[in-house]
Amino acid sequence: MTHKTLNADTTLPAEAIDAIERAATAAHPHEGLFSARAANIKQSAVRDVFDISMQPGLVSLAGGNPYLQSLPLEKLGQTAARIISEEGMTALQYGGGQGTEELRQQICEVMAAEGINDARPENVVVTAGSQSAQDVATKVFCNPGDVVLVENPTYVGALNTFEAYQVQVEPIEMDDDGLVPEVLEARIASLQAEGKSIKFLYTIPNFNNPSGITLAAERRQRIVEICRAANILVLEDNPYGLLRFDGHPIAPMRAANPDDVIYLGSFSKIFAPGLRIGWALVPAHLQRRFYLASEAVTLCPPPLNQMLVSSYIREFDWRGQIETYRALYAERCRALLSALDEHMPEGLTWTRPDGGFFVWVTLPEGVDTYPLLGKAIDAGVVFIPGAAFSPADGPSNKLRLAFSAVPPDTIAEGVRRLAPVLAEAIQASNEGAAL
Amino acid sequence: MTHKTLNADTTLPAEAIDAIERAATAAHPHEGLFSARAANIKQSAVRDVFDISMQPGLVSLAGGNPYLQSLPLEKLGQTAARIISEEGMTALQYGGGQGTEELRQQICEVMAAEGINDARPENVVVTAGSQSAQDVATKVFCNPGDVVLVENPTYVGALNTFEAYQVQVEPIEMDDDGLVPEVLEARIASLQAEGKSIKFLYTIPNFNNPSGITLAAERRQRIVEICRAANILVLEDNPYGLLRFDGHPIAPMRAANPDDVIYLGSFSKIFAPGLRIGWALVPAHLQRRFYLASEAVTLCPPPLNQMLVSSYIREFDWRGQIETYRALYAERCRALLSALDEHMPEGLTWTRPDGGFFVWVTLPEGVDTYPLLGKAIDAGVVFIPGAAFSPADGPSNKLRLAFSAVPPDTIAEGVRRLAPVLAEAIQASNEGAAL
Repeated sequence: MTHKTLNADTTLPAEAIDAIERAATAAHPHEGLFSARAANIKQSAVRDVFDISMQPGLVSLAGGNPYLQSLPLEKLGQTAARIISEEGMTALQYGGGQGTEELRQQICEVMAAEGINDARPENVVVTAGSQSAQDVATKVFCNPGDVVLVENPTYVGALNTFEAYQVQVEPIEMDDDGLVPEVLEARIASLQAEGKSIKFLYTIPNFNNPSGITLAAERRQRIVEICRAANILVLEDNPYGLLRFDGHPIAPMRAANPDDVIYLGSFSKIFAPGLRIGWALVPAHLQRRFYLASEAVTLCPPPLNQMLVSSYIREFDWRGQIETYRALYAERCRALLSALDEHMPEGLTWTRPDGGFFVWVTLPEGVDTYPLLGKAIDAGVVFIPGAAFSPADGPSNKLRLAFSAVPPDTIAEGVRRLAPVLAEAIQASNEGAAL
Repeated sequence: MTHKTLNADTTLPAEAIDAIERAATAAHPHEGLFSARAANIKQSAVRDVFDISMQPGLVSLAGGNPYLQSLPLEKLGQTAARIISEEGMTALQYGGGQGTEELRQQICEVMAAEGINDARPENVVVTAGSQSAQDVATKVFCNPGDVVLVENPTYVGALNTFEAYQVQVEPIEMDDDGLVPEVLEARIASLQAEGKSIKFLYTIPNFNNPSGITLAAERRQRIVEICRAANILVLEDNPYGLLRFDGHPIAPMRAANPDDVIYLGSFSKIFAPGLRIGWALVPAHLQRRFYLASEAVTLCPPPLNQMLVSSYIREFDWRGQIETYRALYAERCRALLSALDEHMPEGLTWTRPDGGFFVWVTLPEGVDTYPLLGKAIDAGVVFIPGAAFSPADGPSNKLRLAFSAVPPDTIAEGVRRLAPVLAEAIQASNEGAAL
């Protein structure tokens, strides 16, 4: 039995698929062996759609895959060959659980480019992508029933991770400048008044996935201070920070607050995701438990992959590559925004991000984007319905479009295909409302 | 603050190190944010000793690192170069959460060599080493307070993983033929009579780490049947199965019991651990939850690493390499056993494994091997004290010697260095008893 994927005739909701599967396994006595948390581990709609996106002829505005064609593959291959032939005894052997000293040094250099100038290698823990760092943070801090605050909307992978620990995920509304300090403060006060134990605020302050919204520079320190006053950690996830289209990166919250912020970084967006190398910069007083928990999950991050990243930082023009990526994604974002301006029907709004991979589209109230996915696929285009990015399972009038993986012309074609699907839905909704 | 390592003057127990550190951080209000499970995440004595083992001049019989010098590194490097230059868009991109189809097919081929003939790729989940598969299994099945049965002694990494989920780990005594079915059955009955919820039996049936003991072929089916009757899963960890010195592998418990056994395999011992590629073969009715939980931790195993393993299986003589490893480890095991026969004082016994990496030494009752480690390091040799391999924190009169990573001559030298340390401890213990 493979995992279920949506296919062309499927607007079957995930619950129905679950129910079919439950019926198939319910008779087995092993069903009673699952942990309570296992019920919270769900199929991600995003992953479903990834499989569909591979179908030839479809324009995928779904997956936020980085565009790797501009990497110097030939030379990278030679580098890998040299690492294995000359240092294979280290590259192919077990390594330290925290990551290599050289890579942790270099990660501090990358974080300096991101605006963090006081990071020390001993407080860096290399992880299997920053996804794994989210998992470790939740493991180390969250008991079942504890509260994790997130932006609404937020990264679906983080939601999956948090929910697997039976955490109560509380989404906080944003405006065009990200989290609103007063709203956050009031929500914290009300949750703590209810006796809730809030462990951390998970935030993607730059070009949030999926909304593309950036937390304004002038709000950042206030957000940290609100959390500090309430004894809540900040889990700052910044995979896209260096991919700002224009100007310099905005300083991360971690920059001025070394004791209050666990900072998550990744080579997935500035180099290559297939190596699965990310990191956490952990406050010194929390480092040991974090590191040990990380080690207990995988023993060590793969040394070969770490050494390849180290060679890349040491020998290649990694800053130049980021400039290439920035120009490339800026062009694609402009193409998407132009196409939306040109083709989208009345009644829609969307964000205009300063960096990253995503634009967030809002349809009129009452239009649920999930059932539109099947129709969009029939029309030859894929997106991610907004419901995926919120812990509530209810309908959502939002959808995410990714511009990172697709050339400008194709982006425009995708929007042309999507426009009539959305127009029809809006019209149907209006007629339904009129009846 | 880096993590604490034992150093030459350290016979300081781990609790003391913890206490020093607690004092340093106790003042911080973040101390109250740790999860209940975080207190169970401990520094592994094995990892401490790994760091020490790197000191020049020391003979390390501590680390169970495989011996990689015999790998065709030059050709492997060329293979990696080809993968990156020709298939870099796939190798360096995100991949599927379950692992590539090709690798899962090949894993079925490897499992056929191990004695499992009916495995299907759709029931294989590729993981970041089999360590990660242990983590996922515990996440999916264990609530805090649930019981996991293990052999006594068992793999320290698995203990760390289980304890991070606040599981009650119950060690079951073995004899020279491994777990004793009647003992297991009685313990299950008594735990279930107490109302305990037992989720799985974790077993390393071939050349157990650390004991080197093999579960006799004629006991295997009975063990599965006892577990099935009590509705307990078997988590069969078989990293060393193909490294039997003579003859054919004994059929795994999974072979005849596809619905009752989650089978864990690894490329770490038959190819290279630095790639961090392992797998779980999961009963069909449990596959989906297992796969989703695995995906929630790391999104996907690194495609580059998977493709390198696939090329290795496809293009290299992997069966021939295993023959090379078998002969190599057999020779080293013989060297260790001869040296023990020659040099060890009266009053010691040790196992004589049929494969794998480890010999388990038993000292007289009342001799604790943990304080002997510092003396052994002074004498120029490192081992792992037995206490590491049991959930109880009490003293142990056992120690583990690894023969995998060290040439025969060096093994003999290590034993020569170790013998007087042990002889002195035994004599001191006898004198203490005589007083």
